[in-house]
Amino acid sequence: MRYGNMRELTLGLEVVLPDGRLWDGLRGLRKDNTGYDLKHLLIGAEGTLGIVTAAVLKLFPLPRHRVVAWIAVPNPSAGVRLLGRFSEVSGNRLTAFELMSQPLLELVLKHIPDSRDPLSAPAAWTVLVELSETGPDVSLVAQAEAILSAAMEAGDVTDAVLAATLSQAARLWALRESTNEAQRREGFSIKHDISVPIHRIPEFLARAETALRAWARDVRIVPYGHVGDGNLHYNLFLPSVASEAALDAATTEANRIVYELVAELDGSISAEHGIGQLKRQDLRRYSSGIEIELMEKIKRVFDPRGLMNPGKML
Amino acid sequence: MRYGNMRELTLGLEVVLPDGRLWDGLRGLRKDNTGYDLKHLLIGAEGTLGIVTAAVLKLFPLPRHRVVAWIAVPNPSAGVRLLGRFSEVSGNRLTAFELMSQPLLELVLKHIPDSRDPLSAPAAWTVLVELSETGPDVSLVAQAEAILSAAMEAGDVTDAVLAATLSQAARLWALRESTNEAQRREGFSIKHDISVPIHRIPEFLARAETALRAWARDVRIVPYGHVGDGNLHYNLFLPSVASEAALDAATTEANRIVYELVAELDGSISAEHGIGQLKRQDLRRYSSGIEIELMEKIKRVFDPRGLMNPGKML
Repeated sequence: MRYGNMRELTLGLEVVLPDGRLWDGLRGLRKDNTGYDLKHLLIGAEGTLGIVTAAVLKLFPLPRHRVVAWIAVPNPSAGVRLLGRFSEVSGNRLTAFELMSQPLLELVLKHIPDSRDPLSAPAAWTVLVELSETGPDVSLVAQAEAILSAAMEAGDVTDAVLAATLSQAARLWALRESTNEAQRREGFSIKHDISVPIHRIPEFLARAETALRAWARDVRIVPYGHVGDGNLHYNLFLPSVASEAALDAATTEANRIVYELVAELDGSISAEHGIGQLKRQDLRRYSSGIEIELMEKIKRVFDPRGLMNPGKML
Repeated sequence: MRYGNMRELTLGLEVVLPDGRLWDGLRGLRKDNTGYDLKHLLIGAEGTLGIVTAAVLKLFPLPRHRVVAWIAVPNPSAGVRLLGRFSEVSGNRLTAFELMSQPLLELVLKHIPDSRDPLSAPAAWTVLVELSETGPDVSLVAQAEAILSAAMEAGDVTDAVLAATLSQAARLWALRESTNEAQRREGFSIKHDISVPIHRIPEFLARAETALRAWARDVRIVPYGHVGDGNLHYNLFLPSVASEAALDAATTEANRIVYELVAELDGSISAEHGIGQLKRQDLRRYSSGIEIELMEKIKRVFDPRGLMNPGKML
């Protein structure tokens, strides 16, 4: 959260275009208003307009201080309100704000050796917060404690631990970062990488669960995400689906349920991982006709012969 | 500096396209990777691809604390080093960092009633710094004093005042904000809105002055700018140019001298104000052939009949 997405960190690009010419856009400027922004068109194009061969990136001073907290919240609404408290008080010292559901943490504790719950009792939802500071004169611990204390009084936080040492902080992060491995060991899951406006995350989680349970009563829903960006990984395990054909059909139906709701809530079906091959049909279904038409025409401007990364995105 | 350029503050757009259709891109998402980024193509297009009819903007909590400092620095290199000190210690509490040359401040003191130099002796270069903070627990005054004290010891700051009250802060900002009016009252000037990589600002200022004085010995150079963005307003008064025809010729030659150097230093000839009508030829001169070709083709994708803001940019 502190440093922004890669798009925001990229000041300039060098790109080989499909006809072999080199576009030298390797500028290191914070302000440049000279015509259409080709850089932003090429970022996120998934290689379909050209091949990025170099980039100029923003750099930041290393933080001098960090504090990591592991926080139990009663529900996603409390998590979003806690995000608001940290945003207001900590500004861009708020470096990470990760929401995890109880089923996700259970998979980590089950599959990852030497992992243990930092809190004394299981929490329905957990938030990992990191604050960092490049300046010398701020007590991040006191700041985090004050925010958590106010949130506890308001009922938005039920328990919390602050990492007192670097190794404690590393252990908290290790729990979050082993979630992919834990899910892989559990078995096949249907994955969604979606975003919705941050204030609609609780509504999305509640309505998606209701719709999915009406479709498959035994679905195990394992949500987590980068809540500060409105980005959720919304993954599903279906214990009763055995054959590959049944899995394909179930995936199609689960995607439809999740993406229809995302679309209704003005969200994105592809928040951080792009379209690739898997989401080509979904891109057409959930984008407007105008968007697809403009994208196809832009593709032809850069790559009239369709040479670049064929079969991807469009 | 704290909040970014308008491009960075814009999450979504609604745009009427040249054929009358409405593109609804009014999304409020922080992360969205669904195809080519049409939003960034339309931002900064100066109305040549469509008409923006609505936008979703990022909002931030109001700062609770502010401190404004008026600082004498011996030269632009010291100013850039001071920017580095503030960036490292204050992070995004650094809200503004404005560099002003002595000739600019003299015009303000000459033309703006009730204006006075906040420092006891005229400074070759002055920096206006604002820090702001949304959290409750930071002493911005102590932080600014510590940075300035270290910079003074290093010889990068020769004098400074901190505004102790809101009205003192407003008076410091009024000096900066009356610079346009002061220049207008002084008479016609040749204006440049350029950016270069921040670390090359001192080199640009030194070499541009040498080149311009070799061309017109009596030129009065009045530089100032948003140094944190690498953006300079580099304005010239030419006392010896009397007729309108001579002024046109002088403008052409001054632009050539300034823009050639900007191009050599990998800068931009149009940092924040865009191309419009005046810089159309300059855009062609200082952009690569590839860039102009791609821009013209993109223009035809959106506006094949050339209806939108004709005569601007391209």
